Amino acid sequence: MKALVYHGPGKKSWEEKPKPIIMEPTDAVVKIFKTTICGTDLHIMKGDLPAVTDGRIIGHEGVGIIEEVGDSVSNFKKGDHVIISCITSCGKCEYCKKAMYSHCEKGGWILGNLIDGTQAEYVRIPYADNSLYPIPAGADEEALVMLSDILPTGFECGVLNGKVKPGDTIAIVGAGPIGMAALLTAQFYTPAEIIMIDMDDNRLNVAKTFGATHVINSGKEDAVAKVMSLTHNKGVDTAIEAVGVAATFELCEKIVGAGAHIANIGVHGKSVTLHLETLWSQNITITTRLVDTVTTPMLFKTVQSGKLDPKKLITHRFRLDQIIEAYDTFEHAAKEKALKVILTN
Amino acid sequence: MKALVYHGPGKKSWEEKPKPIIMEPTDAVVKIFKTTICGTDLHIMKGDLPAVTDGRIIGHEGVGIIEEVGDSVSNFKKGDHVIISCITSCGKCEYCKKAMYSHCEKGGWILGNLIDGTQAEYVRIPYADNSLYPIPAGADEEALVMLSDILPTGFECGVLNGKVKPGDTIAIVGAGPIGMAALLTAQFYTPAEIIMIDMDDNRLNVAKTFGATHVINSGKEDAVAKVMSLTHNKGVDTAIEAVGVAATFELCEKIVGAGAHIANIGVHGKSVTLHLETLWSQNITITTRLVDTVTTPMLFKTVQSGKLDPKKLITHRFRLDQIIEAYDTFEHAAKEKALKVILTN
Amino acid sequence: MKALVYHGPGKKSWEEKPKPIIMEPTDAVVKIFKTTICGTDLHIMKGDLPAVTDGRIIGHEGVGIIEEVGDSVSNFKKGDHVIISCITSCGKCEYCKKAMYSHCEKGGWILGNLIDGTQAEYVRIPYADNSLYPIPAGADEEALVMLSDILPTGFECGVLNGKVKPGDTIAIVGAGPIGMAALLTAQFYTPAEIIMIDMDDNRLNVAKTFGATHVINSGKEDAVAKVMSLTHNKGVDTAIEAVGVAATFELCEKIVGAGAHIANIGVHGKSVTLHLETLWSQNITITTRLVDTVTTPMLFKTVQSGKLDPKKLITHRFRLDQIIEAYDTFEHAAKEKALKVILTN
Amino acid sequence: MKALVYHGPGKKSWEEKPKPIIMEPTDAVVKIFKTTICGTDLHIMKGDLPAVTDGRIIGHEGVGIIEEVGDSVSNFKKGDHVIISCITSCGKCEYCKKAMYSHCEKGGWILGNLIDGTQAEYVRIPYADNSLYPIPAGADEEALVMLSDILPTGFECGVLNGKVKPGDTIAIVGAGPIGMAALLTAQFYTPAEIIMIDMDDNRLNVAKTFGATHVINSGKEDAVAKVMSLTHNKGVDTAIEAVGVAATFELCEKIVGAGAHIANIGVHGKSVTLHLETLWSQNITITTRLVDTVTTPMLFKTVQSGKLDPKKLITHRFRLDQIIEAYDTFEHAAKEKALKVILTN
Repeated sequence: MKALVYHGPGKKSWEEKPKPIIMEPTDAVVKIFKTTICGTDLHIMKGDLPAVTDGRIIGHEGVGIIEEVGDSVSNFKKGDHVIISCITSCGKCEYCKKAMYSHCEKGGWILGNLIDGTQAEYVRIPYADNSLYPIPAGADEEALVMLSDILPTGFECGVLNGKVKPGDTIAIVGAGPIGMAALLTAQFYTPAEIIMIDMDDNRLNVAKTFGATHVINSGKEDAVAKVMSLTHNKGVDTAIEAVGVAATFELCEKIVGAGAHIANIGVHGKSVTLHLETLWSQNITITTRLVDTVTTPMLFKTVQSGKLDPKKLITHRFRLDQIIEAYDTFEHAAKEKALKVILTN
Repeated sequence: MKALVYHGPGKKSWEEKPKPIIMEPTDAVVKIFKTTICGTDLHIMKGDLPAVTDGRIIGHEGVGIIEEVGDSVSNFKKGDHVIISCITSCGKCEYCKKAMYSHCEKGGWILGNLIDGTQAEYVRIPYADNSLYPIPAGADEEALVMLSDILPTGFECGVLNGKVKPGDTIAIVGAGPIGMAALLTAQFYTPAEIIMIDMDDNRLNVAKTFGATHVINSGKEDAVAKVMSLTHNKGVDTAIEAVGVAATFELCEKIVGAGAHIANIGVHGKSVTLHLETLWSQNITITTRLVDTVTTPMLFKTVQSGKLDPKKLITHRFRLDQIIEAYDTFEHAAKEKALKVILTN
Repeated sequence: MKALVYHGPGKKSWEEKPKPIIMEPTDAVVKIFKTTICGTDLHIMKGDLPAVTDGRIIGHEGVGIIEEVGDSVSNFKKGDHVIISCITSCGKCEYCKKAMYSHCEKGGWILGNLIDGTQAEYVRIPYADNSLYPIPAGADEEALVMLSDILPTGFECGVLNGKVKPGDTIAIVGAGPIGMAALLTAQFYTPAEIIMIDMDDNRLNVAKTFGATHVINSGKEDAVAKVMSLTHNKGVDTAIEAVGVAATFELCEKIVGAGAHIANIGVHGKSVTLHLETLWSQNITITTRLVDTVTTPMLFKTVQSGKLDPKKLITHRFRLDQIIEAYDTFEHAAKEKALKVILTN
Repeated sequence: MKALVYHGPGKKSWEEKPKPIIMEPTDAVVKIFKTTICGTDLHIMKGDLPAVTDGRIIGHEGVGIIEEVGDSVSNFKKGDHVIISCITSCGKCEYCKKAMYSHCEKGGWILGNLIDGTQAEYVRIPYADNSLYPIPAGADEEALVMLSDILPTGFECGVLNGKVKPGDTIAIVGAGPIGMAALLTAQFYTPAEIIMIDMDDNRLNVAKTFGATHVINSGKEDAVAKVMSLTHNKGVDTAIEAVGVAATFELCEKIVGAGAHIANIGVHGKSVTLHLETLWSQNITITTRLVDTVTTPMLFKTVQSGKLDPKKLITHRFRLDQIIEAYDTFEHAAKEKALKVILTN
């Protein structure tokens, strides 16, 4: 089969690889129908994740069709259409039993990281019963690719951890794909005001069409001053960090009110400064989380019932064998006005 | 001043009464601008609430303008526009400190019940600082009358107690004003499916325009069978009882799935049968609640931000001095297709 | 092997049966070391549970040693010491993923009910990885038999569902083994007062030594009046029903204060009367639950650290081949002053 | 009357001041019976809190007897014995209604800070109905001084925010009075293991008698290594920071496991480094809080029922007019083996 293979920092190729086979009775092999590229894949390509080694097929999102299942797989059979979760869950370790699949002792985020991933014609999925989700006939499978990673990430790490409530005023710092996923799913809880902060006017304009009630270009305006003005100097109820650098996290620290939540989604490469000299008395909650994908079934229901339209996030479409070109587009997301790119096999 | 006075079962009159005065330093006197009639007022008129005695001015909802405040009132001053809460809260008893204002040792539901109420030109509000809510200039005051009672009741007793969550399938039994308030506010949490059950086709048609995804006329169809069919025999996640009779409560018992919630809003005059012989093992939660009105500030934010439009509930408008006619309309709500009637002073 | 076999109402025998074998790759066969008799087993013997058919080996509690495991069992191997959960959990259905193992689509309470149970020399455990818990060397295995069912049942259905909190006043109605399990585990949350209600003075005296701060013999005293007196007419914060008949449930309805919880543990054969005509306005929460055994690992930690001593519940000990005699003792629990009887193989 | 007066950094005196009088109808004047000195008072004395100005009577803890009440005070009357909360709550602002008294718009921590405090023969308490708590006849009033500040602070900021649960393994960093208060109240939730970390062997020995299951002298041992060893490399479920410097907060960051809580109690003068480069994926919750004293009534019940013995915290006793000597002792707490000093008027 063909697959996108990482060959060290800056090097990737679309090349022939052996088709995966069942290795454990809990495995499934899935024929990829649609996949996508994640910001994390770009980090891999830069060499930021040394655990990813030369020869690895990357990618951790996608929908497909079951090609074969191991002997103890009971939830799925050949021919079933499935969503592939970015998180592999064994279903029987201490963490899986606590619904913290991100820290599964045998799984977690391994796809396209420690084992071969989904940017390929076929992929082997360990613990298939707990790591795949069924797609009924007639569902819009392109939309469901967004349920592999980006929507549960924005929702679990940003919205749920941020305890967004009806009537709240929230800010989302970062209007990239993950910030947009938080924006879409925050509306499940009907906040009164959603302030989107970014430095790209195009993304901010898109955010407005996605439901942001206010946008702030922090490259042009004093974001702290503007948030304080919008909130009558009270600060926001929840600030969601969707970038992953110190400046944006510290911006969140400055715009939260007493009793507020800072929900970190961003993947940080460096430490940040936590201003406990002011925050110690402000009854603040700060959360971090690697997505557990425990909300995938719930998100699926909101998509099926038309309450959430994940296709809004898709800006570009390619054939799977055009993946090198798709990477090029996604690497220049601002210029290309790209959020999510879809690759069809 | 003029006021609607209860004179025993079946007897009421629009008559002259003394204008209320400040009796305690925590009181305010409010000039009524708009008020409405509650289903509970109809119960009073039938003599169902013996605590309400001859001579009582009834009514517990409304918006108005502060006429005078007692010496220790600090949140309000003459001329302020206010929402009157149906629940009086002293702010300093054990229950108020637990945000259970409904059981305030000195307040609770007393307006138009144990003390004179709001269907009058003026009303005295005890513990004004905790029992009134400010209305800023420019707000739509007619809409805000719905925040006195009906919206917090539907929301707190039905939606919050029923723990409605994104993606859920819920049923609301009873499409009267309270059921409709639950329907509108349930959507704050983006359930996937909302099944409305009633015996009045007009109300069910209105429910569809308010966001119900399915409607069942339980007078014409087997409601249990239809709910089970819609839920693939799993039952609903939450059933909200918004009528107050045994049959509707027991319907809720039959349509809930394992792990589900039954949230009672209805005012019951008789006991019901709880089928513990089947429910004991079904991980069910049943809640009751007299509205606390703790969510009034939050509901106000959702109205101000356009996320909730309470005016949808208003079907008829009268001058305050036409209140006898307004009662007549509200007493024949089904025939008149009435939900809430607004009276303007 | 030898096993206790049900042969229809009133008939049981200790007889030869085939030793169980691995039937599915997820199975384990466990050699029973210690088991016990549950009140539910007595119900089975009376014919109250028609799903239990002639020839069934009963019993759903015990500790033992792994004899053999299926190919896909990865958490256990031959020779491991294990606690057998009364609830079988597949770990991969919708309910197991929500930690509601009691409603597992392929498991739930099936041991000694729909499949052969633990009152035998060996037992087959389906979905062993999720239905057994490891016992480290040196643990007191007799004490751990109480973790199969009775302690998680008292804790999850009574204490957790009853939301017992520090400083609370709670009542437990029923001082049998389950009520005692609720009494012991309620103390994890440090309620200020625990009122134990029963009609057996011996059990009440035992309850005092287990931590009850007040006891009421409802056969001799007016339990409602006494609870109201003890609580200064406020009623209790939580009432735990640990009997399973209408009278005790309705007693709970009468002794709860505004905002309180009624947590049902009892297995009810008949419906009860729910007094919504008074409770509708009392902000009450009523819960039912079949134990999920999700707290078994947590309870194990409290036992290992000496915070909970389950051996207190054990009053009688027999050899497994004396099980007919043990049943006789347990059937006359009041006379024999029996709580839990332990059978050692 | 006599009072302890702050006269700028390093200067205090026990001197004559006017007896306070009722200034607002919501005030009470309380005759101090017993008071104590807080670590924060030492900070004031060093000049660390510039808001405290020359001439201020300091102190924010104590029990006493009502001398006089304003016209609108209804919960108390002359002669009542009361606990004085360190937090003043108006009961009617947005924050008080959310039970966040620490941020009361008219109160919060003002006693002995922005208004005169309790280290005096008399003190004026604003908003007395919401800022005092009744003491029934016969209660041990010395013990109840611990309910003014230290116990609610340890409990709310450390234990509640840290979400301590039965069976958990927790660490408390700092064995001073606040850490000890966290240690005592953490046991309300029956954690399996409580690891106390400090650099003073005497305090660690006391911690053992208060319920710590393990102690680590971080001045002599590698605390991170030892915690990891005790937790089988999993880290603790909750780390409570009870010192207020960067080193101890960062220690907490290093010893928490995936899914854990860091509950900050310490008053920090400087920022700390938050290691998001490792913690971003660890599903951590970090909380800060100025005590709200919402749990004072609950803590009172645990004291009255004998579940909590706050007198354990009292190491030294003085007459109120010996307060200069008492400060001297408390300033040398380690040498004097002092936790809390009690001053009796």
